[in-house]
Amino acid sequence: MNSPKSHHIAISASLICCDLLNVERELRQMEEAGIDSLHIDLIDGHFSPSMPLGLDLVRQARRKTRLPFDAHLMVENNEFFVQEMLDIGAERIAFHYESAFHVDRLLCLIRERGVKAGLALMPTTPLSVLDYCVDRLDFVLLMLINPGFAGRKDETQVPYALRRVADCRRHLQGFGLDIPIEVDGRVDFDTIPGLIAAGATDLVVGTRSAFHPGGTLAENIHRMRQAAAAGFSKRPGPACG
Amino acid sequence: MNSPKSHHIAISASLICCDLLNVERELRQMEEAGIDSLHIDLIDGHFSPSMPLGLDLVRQARRKTRLPFDAHLMVENNEFFVQEMLDIGAERIAFHYESAFHVDRLLCLIRERGVKAGLALMPTTPLSVLDYCVDRLDFVLLMLINPGFAGRKDETQVPYALRRVADCRRHLQGFGLDIPIEVDGRVDFDTIPGLIAAGATDLVVGTRSAFHPGGTLAENIHRMRQAAAAGFSKRPGPACG
Amino acid sequence: MNSPKSHHIAISASLICCDLLNVERELRQMEEAGIDSLHIDLIDGHFSPSMPLGLDLVRQARRKTRLPFDAHLMVENNEFFVQEMLDIGAERIAFHYESAFHVDRLLCLIRERGVKAGLALMPTTPLSVLDYCVDRLDFVLLMLINPGFAGRKDETQVPYALRRVADCRRHLQGFGLDIPIEVDGRVDFDTIPGLIAAGATDLVVGTRSAFHPGGTLAENIHRMRQAAAAGFSKRPGPACG
Amino acid sequence: MNSPKSHHIAISASLICCDLLNVERELRQMEEAGIDSLHIDLIDGHFSPSMPLGLDLVRQARRKTRLPFDAHLMVENNEFFVQEMLDIGAERIAFHYESAFHVDRLLCLIRERGVKAGLALMPTTPLSVLDYCVDRLDFVLLMLINPGFAGRKDETQVPYALRRVADCRRHLQGFGLDIPIEVDGRVDFDTIPGLIAAGATDLVVGTRSAFHPGGTLAENIHRMRQAAAAGFSKRPGPACG
Amino acid sequence: MNSPKSHHIAISASLICCDLLNVERELRQMEEAGIDSLHIDLIDGHFSPSMPLGLDLVRQARRKTRLPFDAHLMVENNEFFVQEMLDIGAERIAFHYESAFHVDRLLCLIRERGVKAGLALMPTTPLSVLDYCVDRLDFVLLMLINPGFAGRKDETQVPYALRRVADCRRHLQGFGLDIPIEVDGRVDFDTIPGLIAAGATDLVVGTRSAFHPGGTLAENIHRMRQAAAAGFSKRPGPACG
Amino acid sequence: MNSPKSHHIAISASLICCDLLNVERELRQMEEAGIDSLHIDLIDGHFSPSMPLGLDLVRQARRKTRLPFDAHLMVENNEFFVQEMLDIGAERIAFHYESAFHVDRLLCLIRERGVKAGLALMPTTPLSVLDYCVDRLDFVLLMLINPGFAGRKDETQVPYALRRVADCRRHLQGFGLDIPIEVDGRVDFDTIPGLIAAGATDLVVGTRSAFHPGGTLAENIHRMRQAAAAGFSKRPGPACG
Repeated sequence: MNSPKSHHIAISASLICCDLLNVERELRQMEEAGIDSLHIDLIDGHFSPSMPLGLDLVRQARRKTRLPFDAHLMVENNEFFVQEMLDIGAERIAFHYESAFHVDRLLCLIRERGVKAGLALMPTTPLSVLDYCVDRLDFVLLMLINPGFAGRKDETQVPYALRRVADCRRHLQGFGLDIPIEVDGRVDFDTIPGLIAAGATDLVVGTRSAFHPGGTLAENIHRMRQAAAAGFSKRPGPACG
Repeated sequence: MNSPKSHHIAISASLICCDLLNVERELRQMEEAGIDSLHIDLIDGHFSPSMPLGLDLVRQARRKTRLPFDAHLMVENNEFFVQEMLDIGAERIAFHYESAFHVDRLLCLIRERGVKAGLALMPTTPLSVLDYCVDRLDFVLLMLINPGFAGRKDETQVPYALRRVADCRRHLQGFGLDIPIEVDGRVDFDTIPGLIAAGATDLVVGTRSAFHPGGTLAENIHRMRQAAAAGFSKRPGPACG
Repeated sequence: MNSPKSHHIAISASLICCDLLNVERELRQMEEAGIDSLHIDLIDGHFSPSMPLGLDLVRQARRKTRLPFDAHLMVENNEFFVQEMLDIGAERIAFHYESAFHVDRLLCLIRERGVKAGLALMPTTPLSVLDYCVDRLDFVLLMLINPGFAGRKDETQVPYALRRVADCRRHLQGFGLDIPIEVDGRVDFDTIPGLIAAGATDLVVGTRSAFHPGGTLAENIHRMRQAAAAGFSKRPGPACG
Repeated sequence: MNSPKSHHIAISASLICCDLLNVERELRQMEEAGIDSLHIDLIDGHFSPSMPLGLDLVRQARRKTRLPFDAHLMVENNEFFVQEMLDIGAERIAFHYESAFHVDRLLCLIRERGVKAGLALMPTTPLSVLDYCVDRLDFVLLMLINPGFAGRKDETQVPYALRRVADCRRHLQGFGLDIPIEVDGRVDFDTIPGLIAAGATDLVVGTRSAFHPGGTLAENIHRMRQAAAAGFSKRPGPACG
Repeated sequence: MNSPKSHHIAISASLICCDLLNVERELRQMEEAGIDSLHIDLIDGHFSPSMPLGLDLVRQARRKTRLPFDAHLMVENNEFFVQEMLDIGAERIAFHYESAFHVDRLLCLIRERGVKAGLALMPTTPLSVLDYCVDRLDFVLLMLINPGFAGRKDETQVPYALRRVADCRRHLQGFGLDIPIEVDGRVDFDTIPGLIAAGATDLVVGTRSAFHPGGTLAENIHRMRQAAAAGFSKRPGPACG
Repeated sequence: MNSPKSHHIAISASLICCDLLNVERELRQMEEAGIDSLHIDLIDGHFSPSMPLGLDLVRQARRKTRLPFDAHLMVENNEFFVQEMLDIGAERIAFHYESAFHVDRLLCLIRERGVKAGLALMPTTPLSVLDYCVDRLDFVLLMLINPGFAGRKDETQVPYALRRVADCRRHLQGFGLDIPIEVDGRVDFDTIPGLIAAGATDLVVGTRSAFHPGGTLAENIHRMRQAAAAGFSKRPGPACG
């Protein structure tokens, strides 16, 4: 949603971290606090042992808010869920390379409807899978935890998170690309500066940052933007290329 | 939840027919209006092309209401979802015979935790599949539409609905059983009397009855109970056997 | 395609037994010889280890003949192939109960388009699976060999073929139904009388009958109709009920 | 292996209950003690969450004993395992109806090689699935626990065990058949009389009977035969029909 | 079928673009017009939502022509279809890396029978998957559209087609290899020069080139060879390596 | 189990090459002969058409020996088998990248229990799949034959075996890593020197080496260690980095 060169980060707040019994009120608060988009994790219980959210809730939410929907599909039948999210009206849809078969086709399906297409990657997937997708990609979503296990307390950010973000940024630059890198998994005030410095631009945030009990949503967003600014200042000089 | 001999029907209101952006308020209203249980349709996008609800919403709802949870699993991995619903705390769990492999074991898993175990049947599944399950069953859930297609406008109740309910009641009586038969699919004011007369006891209700715009929730429930009473009066005399 | 009470049998000639390099010529010959329909076996290599025919050939054939298409799906993804055959324009579509999940829905999908819907059964599937389908059924297709293994020389007609056809006819009569029973598998001049006597009405025929080298197609059809007439004469008297 | 009319029961001792580190010695002991056959449970970790035995052990055992091999397949790919057991040289092979697709074909594959073919049934599977298989069947294997869960301590024999055995015996008699019924699951000294009385003929035995620490293998077998004789004496008089 | 250094291209005409009702005549015409091989697309309806051709047609065609068969498997069960095509008698068999599990084994199976083994790649698959296969490979088949979607009108050649072909040629040269690269997807008179210049050697051709209505088959082949010659002249100088 | 810098190789003897009817005696002999670990191949019949060993044998063996268990999972459901082997008590567990979905998570599951985690690779899998796993890896297991086909006589070591081992050693060095590389597939006296020279450290050995009939187990081990020493002497000079 933004260029990695600008100093603005995109903050995508996780729907699964909200009060799901009062979503309408939560949407109002997020709109007011200046969240950039609503991050929607769709898991089908097959990709991972989890099924946190349903499509009916998302469909109803769409009618009540103009917040951009940033959908993250963790499913086996990507074609079905891409179609559902296109019909509901998402602004961004990322699906996983690892569960997708006709990758190029899925990217086309999303873009033909004027929606931003992203490729989500498990922590260990080689970055070479991006080599030809890049011509169809609007953003990359790097998982920094094992997707679908966010709720487990013992799930920690992978130790190679920063190396991976930096490698991905370099890899994209190798193709002359400057597209957003969204990071997802234990993104908090402490890790944001490093992630931004390494090349991340979009942050999926939840109970450890946006909804941190130590502040209001607006205060937490402010704090995240400050942490991000600190990260930008540590970025390497003008990338040659 | 009740004996078919009594004149009380159990009304299970579908969560998917609620305002999902304000579930807390909806729960309050259902409690006050005297709904017997909350019917929770869990579909994984594989059993049927649909994934209306997520487990996180159900988990949060559990903390805010004492309404009995009447879970209907339409999933491939029954063992996972049975376990999740047991951990969340449902009062009744029905899974589908057609997608279950170790049927007896699943029934045991549910009952060992003190939860009512039900077997859900697609419209065309032969009733002989109940022959040995009956010793482990607390209720039967008969689908009167193709499960997972409820949202489609052209989906109508199967023409053999009444015959099926009556056959099922007789089949259970053949084993000396008097357990509840829950019916699901286009249950409305007009069809309730016939369904009850044929032997149904528990009604899954939604936009065509409980949430019908022609009345308040309480009024609609009252109307349903009247329709059910009319059905009871048409029931055949004391079943011999 | 006909009532079991009439003395006319329907002869459905297998496309897989034709000269597939000259299908246009074969279609002409079948039209002229008075074949009732073209039997089209679609196997996806998953249902059975075989994939004899493709959809493109069927699509092109549709443009060149008015012979009714009698499609027999032996596939895992019934919804896809039903849709394809509806779009191509078949007159009859049978799918297998054993590989179908939403059975009632598939029958509806076919009938809504004005096409005859049939249920195909493996040799050992209990007939009770028909109990509720009967309200949506236009015909039953009984496999008398293991479907998809027709090409194997050692594959013989099941020893219980006649018992099964007779049971099926009785089972349908139990519901007051008089719909066609199509039989498939080693149907030849010798077995036709018995099959017809037992209650079959539609015959899937191939190299052992219609395309038998001992006669022309027209002669073979004539011989089959004679064999069928002999079978009719052996039918039990007027079915009571 | 024997007729239900005779007073001899077949005792099939479970390989999984042996000392698997000294199988050669165990085979010797079973031969000497007069075990009728070696029961071999093959589970592939997909049918049930268990994979107790491997084919290499069975292959090596075949070369060292003439004990009949009584193989019970609890697998998804029946065709592969049937073929393996035919090549290794089993005397009896039972596969599960619930995981088999081309049931008739599998029965033929086994019988063509001169091996006894059996159909194994989960506890709740309707007996009507036998209706046409009977013409190809040498024996039925009734599971009295959920197959593949034998190792779990909380797994108990299904409460409808005796009813099921008796129903199966009657069902087979309805077809004029007198073939063996093998029972598997918590078969012990106390349950043997009832199972035999109900119509069982072949017993799968393990740590609760054959290998019971209270006696030697020979003593335990003697005790089982006594228990069986007690059961026979309780059988209903000559079955009429 | 030829070396990339030579100026001869191999033209493989798609069977699915022929008149499938008159295949024998079509084979004659292709033989006379000087087609190098017959390209046979086998799709099982699972790999992609399509099943254009069947094996029986291919088997019959084999008996009537000496045209080399260039089989392209787009299937899930590669081992089955490889075996079928070996038995029928193909000269070249390519399967997809993305649906193959035991890749090395499949390549060996093909080569052991004296048949050319190819690896087909989806548009976005990284070329590093070739790194060790190269020792077993006779050719690479690069898909320039999403395989199995050829029939859809909106399916266009991927924008990175030329980059991909050039990368693949370089990648193979890195291993000292000079094997053919076959390209498939919207290959027409306009795109041929660029594809050949980038390193392609074998062209899968259909309705946009070989069977273009603007010329006879022979004329179109001539025109394609001219376009290819133009492409060769643009190739970079002698590859060092 | 050892550092590639040391001159000691780890010899892991295949359980499937033992006399499986006398495993207790075999364990004693391996302990005495100085085998470093017991290599346990677990195949589920789905990953490959083979199921050589069962878990019950492994469980019983664990109680009788202190030999380290070196488990090699060739299964589809990695999470289940990892858990089983952790519970049984293995010292090393390798699973296949190609059949694993949540790769990082599986590595963590193993390590959290203090067990060495390895990644097994099919012969043709690109080494880039190791790029981020390296931070969680204790060893790499390179298959030099197609896994699960070891028993077939025509299965030979891949021709690129030495290139692959050397590439893998270099790849790991590129990350500053010095972890063991285990090689599996036709490892014998003749191939050991080359494999060790290329960078292998751990050898899976069977009938062609450890159990070679030309010597006792102890003699064969001695001979293998000599062959390995010869290999070490051919290793390239001190790796810089």
